[in-house]
Order: sequence, then structure tokens, then C-alpha cells
Amino acid sequence: MAVECENENCHAWAARDPSGILSPYKFERSFDAYNFPGQITRTVRSDDVSLRITHCGVCYADVAWTRNMLHNSMYPLVPGHEIAGVVTEVGSEVKIFKVGDHVGVGTYVNSCQDCENCNGFLENHCSKNVFTFNGVDADGSVTKGGYSSHIVVHQRYCFKIPDGYPLAKAAPLLCAGITVYTPMMRHNMKQPGKSLGVIGLGGLGHMAVKFGKAFGLKVTVFSTSESKREEATSLLGAHNFVLSSDENQMETLKGSLHFILDTTSADHPLDPYLSLLKVGGVMVLLSFPSEIKVHPANLNLGARCLSGSVTGGTKDTQEMINFCAANKIYPEIEMIKINYINEALQRLIGRDVRFRFVIDIENSFK
Amino acid sequence: MAVECENENCHAWAARDPSGILSPYKFERSFDAYNFPGQITRTVRSDDVSLRITHCGVCYADVAWTRNMLHNSMYPLVPGHEIAGVVTEVGSEVKIFKVGDHVGVGTYVNSCQDCENCNGFLENHCSKNVFTFNGVDADGSVTKGGYSSHIVVHQRYCFKIPDGYPLAKAAPLLCAGITVYTPMMRHNMKQPGKSLGVIGLGGLGHMAVKFGKAFGLKVTVFSTSESKREEATSLLGAHNFVLSSDENQMETLKGSLHFILDTTSADHPLDPYLSLLKVGGVMVLLSFPSEIKVHPANLNLGARCLSGSVTGGTKDTQEMINFCAANKIYPEIEMIKINYINEALQRLIGRDVRFRFVIDIENSFK
Repeated sequence: MAVECENENCHAWAARDPSGILSPYKFERSFDAYNFPGQITRTVRSDDVSLRITHCGVCYADVAWTRNMLHNSMYPLVPGHEIAGVVTEVGSEVKIFKVGDHVGVGTYVNSCQDCENCNGFLENHCSKNVFTFNGVDADGSVTKGGYSSHIVVHQRYCFKIPDGYPLAKAAPLLCAGITVYTPMMRHNMKQPGKSLGVIGLGGLGHMAVKFGKAFGLKVTVFSTSESKREEATSLLGAHNFVLSSDENQMETLKGSLHFILDTTSADHPLDPYLSLLKVGGVMVLLSFPSEIKVHPANLNLGARCLSGSVTGGTKDTQEMINFCAANKIYPEIEMIKINYINEALQRLIGRDVRFRFVIDIENSFK
Repeated sequence: MAVECENENCHAWAARDPSGILSPYKFERSFDAYNFPGQITRTVRSDDVSLRITHCGVCYADVAWTRNMLHNSMYPLVPGHEIAGVVTEVGSEVKIFKVGDHVGVGTYVNSCQDCENCNGFLENHCSKNVFTFNGVDADGSVTKGGYSSHIVVHQRYCFKIPDGYPLAKAAPLLCAGITVYTPMMRHNMKQPGKSLGVIGLGGLGHMAVKFGKAFGLKVTVFSTSESKREEATSLLGAHNFVLSSDENQMETLKGSLHFILDTTSADHPLDPYLSLLKVGGVMVLLSFPSEIKVHPANLNLGARCLSGSVTGGTKDTQEMINFCAANKIYPEIEMIKINYINEALQRLIGRDVRFRFVIDIENSFK
């Protein structure tokens, strides 16, 4: 049986154990995993797109899985699910992408393509959704992410990045961007004049402010750190900044917001924020606190909703990228080379980043 | 200063202390409380409607406040906020009601009429909303509810009961009916083919099943009691009955429901129900558990919402009554005389009622 591939080495950085320390790593992306089960990934099939990765954003998920925080990490582990690059090869059935196209890949690279969620373009909620890294694909291979020189994915999970949109800036859209965009669209927040609260001003929070401004919303940023005030209001143009420890300021906002996005990963009380919502208002959690505990009066008496969200479906993802291009919405990034990644992850843990690290992949593996 | 009233005695039953035992009580509804501050209620003003009460439904709220469970009961306390009756007098400015009309009064009798919520017909969420009993009205008087022979209310909080709709059956619509109707409408459940879960089959739950059927929904009833199976499916026509302790049956329903109404007042785990919701599904709590504690994965991974609700606004209430009349939706009631009320409240606590007690007021005070 012939190996239908180039046998090209894929350059990457991987974590080898729960220390989470990343170091250079090489592997083959090009074996045909159906014929060579156990091989780590696959050749270009008829529906596949192969891309040379130029940039990869650094998400908190990269910290979580390289350090085995979810107790399911499979080493060596190549993280990265905010991938931007250039198409180098397409399968025979691929019509919407061609060699040279700028494309992105986000947090997942497969799903069953046949369930209610997949049929409704909610592939992120498919029970067979395969994460871009540390996922087990349908062929049994363990996926490897975007801290690598190239990747092969089914065209459904590949997104067109419009001409002129910088690839470095496109990368964070594939997780941070879609993660905040999806719940805003789900809860009808693309309506000028509505009020948005954003808790936390990191990679996700700063994108929420940008979308809020683009949608014509009145944006209030909540932070535990006074140092974020200037960034929130001057750099990002939020209308209001509230130090969440300032009870007087919190009190004045009671019942005033239509929608709150909680982008923080640290545990914190939710009741003080729920009470800021108008009647029928919605608060969406984007991270996983250790538990959710709220007072029923804060839901019932205001008919408020507490919800959660994870990334987004393929249709929304392409729509979000197009919206960013049309409205000149660009993530704020700090570009790094791959050999800085261990320091970068450490800084990310310490929230010392304005606002997203992006790895300059194409200049890291030369 | 003249007393502009009839000085007619109002016959009622009241609780005198936290024992919650009710006994006959007489008071004046007809003093002008603006001129006679401290009097318990008022004469008919220009915007008021006076009605002879014919029926009053018995709600769990009547138990809670007669027994001072919320530590704010003011005795003597006349409960009852599911009021149906016949107009006997209208103020000079009242155009939409006339003497002889059949009308209802629900859980509140006043609000500021000038805030965002009142202007949006969400008077139930107005911060100055005045409960129909044990509320402090704008004039300082303490409101007395529908376990009484007549009542005077501002026309805004009075609802037309269409000709032919039995007043006895209309009474429970004013709290049980609107309490389940409001969240169903808020969350777009008037869409045939959607799936509804109803937890608990009491006064609220049985109305939820009836609305669900009328909306063309697939209705599943959850109960802790096998004895409810027959009532749920045969009497009320629910499509499915699930004993909530049956883990296998619960498992098969995972991810299958669009909406769940939790009508139970007892504390119980919410996670098993949240996991039954489809992506984007909503679960609404209609009572006040001692706390709300859920696992974040049950919200985030399915983009699900946990919400709460209390009664409904005036526009929705009239719409709901009209919908019931047009679709021949009638609460299942057990009619009692007022002198049975102490036994009835005891039976309500023991969930021994199919499905709502209604006091035959007009034949109780003869």
C-alpha cells in the first residue's frame, strides 16, 4: 500500500510532560492514518486543505493542556488553535479554497457532520467534535495544533481570511474572536444602543469591547485592576470603566445592562454582576469556574439569564471573520517567536499581555 | 372632610399571626386613604375599578405569607391574588371597564407607571410594584387580598375576562397561568414542534402542560411521584412522563429539550435537568430554592441558559387570558368554600390538590 504523501517533516514545539515546558519537536503530518493507524496525522484527502502556518495565537487553553490541568493531556502535545496561514495544497473535491489563499483554522478540526448540531452549523457542540490539539480524530490519531509549520484539515473547518486582513491579526479571531462573537449574536446584541458589560480585559475581553463598539453598544468594562482603565477607555474606546471592588460604582449600575460577558478565568462571585442586568438581561460565562452559585432572586426577580458559551460554529466563524475585515476590527497583539513561548505562557498566566500573543510561525522555523 | 365612600364592610378571612390559621375578619375597603392615612384601603378614585369578588384561587404564596415564611408578614393578613369577579363601580376616567363586566386581578395592584419597566409593560418588575396582599401601597396602606368580598384597584391592574369564560376557572389564570405563560413567551416557545419539559405537576405545572399542548409542543412531565403519570398523560395529554429518579430514562433524554419550566418549590439538583436541554436551551425557575448551584459545563458546553421568572406584565396577562378563552384552556380546579381554607392550605402543603383550589367567594359570605 502506497504512502500517498510527501513525508515532509512538520516542525513544531511540544510539551513533553505536565511541566508544560515546550521545546522543539518534529513529526510527520503526511502519513495516511487510515492505512497507517496509530500514525499521528494524515495526508491530504479529497476534502482536505493543507496550509503552511504563518501565525498562531496563544490561548489560555495552551497553558491548560500543556500543564495537564484537565488531566487528559497526551504527550508530546503540540498546542495552538488560533491558526492562520496560506493554502499549499487542496484535495480533489475542494472547490472553495485554492493554493495561495489565506485561511484560518480554529479550535476544532472535525465533527460528525451528520447530527442536529452539525446540520445547524453548531459543530462546536457536536458530541464528536475533535479539538485541534490533544483531540482524538475519527481515524484514531491524536491531533497536533498550530505551534507547527503546517497542518492538514477538512475544508469544513477551514476559513477564508479576506485579502488585506493581516494574517498575524487574523489568528486570534479563530478562538478569542469567535468565542465572544458567538454569544453576542446568539443573544441579539448586534443592536445599536444596547448596553454591554465586559468582565476582564484580556484576549477575549478586548475583542468583546471591539465587537461592542462596532455593534454600536454602550460598553462598560469591569476589572479588578485600576491599571486597565486607560487601556479600556483610551485605547479600546469603552464608554465606562468600573473597578469591580468599587461597591458604590457597582450600585449605580444596578439594572442597567442588557448583556454581560464574563471573560475571566478566575473564580469570583457572580451575584454582584447579575444584579446589574436589566429585566431579561443575560450574563454569559466564557470560562469554567470551579462551580456556579448564585442567589435565585437575582435570576427570578429580573427574569435574568445566566448562560455559558464555548467557541462557535463554522458559519458564525466565517461571518465573524468577514465582519472583522469589513469593519476593520483587529485584535491587539504582541508578536513573538516560538523560542519565546515558555516565557509568553508564563506571562499569560500572570495576565501580562496586551492583549494576545501571536507566534510568528513562518519566521520561527527558518 | 367628607368620606367619599359607602362605608361598606368588606367580609374576609385573615391570618392573625404566624400560625397562619385563617378566621373571619371584617374591614373597610372604602375609606379614602389619602385623606385618612393609616386606613387599610381606599375609596374608588377616578382610575379605579371596584369589583365584587366571586372567586379566588389558592396559591402557595398564601401559605408562605400567612405563615410569615418570608419574615415580612403584616397581620391581620388577608391573602389571595388570583381574583375573579364582577365590576360594581368604575371611576370617572375608566373607559375600558363598565359595571357588570367580568374582570380579574392578579398578584399586584400598583406600580410607579413611569419607569422603563412600567413603560415596557413589565410592571411586575417595577421597583415600586405593590403586591395584592401584604404590600404597602403608594398611600401607605397595607394591601388586603382576594379572600374577601370585594376589592378596589386601579384599572391598569384589572383584566377583562371574556364572556363565557367561567369566573371560577379564570381565577387561577391570574397567578398560576401568567407565571408559566410569561417565560414561555419570553423564550419563544409558541412554536409548534418544540419540546417542553415541565418539572412538577401542581397548579403551575398543569397550566404549563396545557399551554404547551396549545402551542403544539412535545410535552414531557417530570415528577418525583409515579402517581402523577396517569394525570400527566391521560388527563392533561402530556406526550411523556418521566420519574425524575429514573436515571436511565433521564439519560435517554439528554440534549433533547428546548425548554424546561421548573415549577417545584422544593430544593433539588438542577444539573440533571440542565443536561437534558439542547444546545441553546433554556431552563426557567419559577420558585425560590434556597440557592442555585450548577456545574459550569452544563451551561457552557451546551450554550444553555438558566433563568427565573415571576408572574408577568399587564399586557401579557390580558393576552394570556384572551388566549385561554380563544383556545378553551381551563385550569383544573377543586372548588371550596372559605370555611374550608385552613384544611385546603394544609392539603396544598402536602401537594394534595388536583390542581388548584378555588374559593367560591360569592357563596362563602352570604
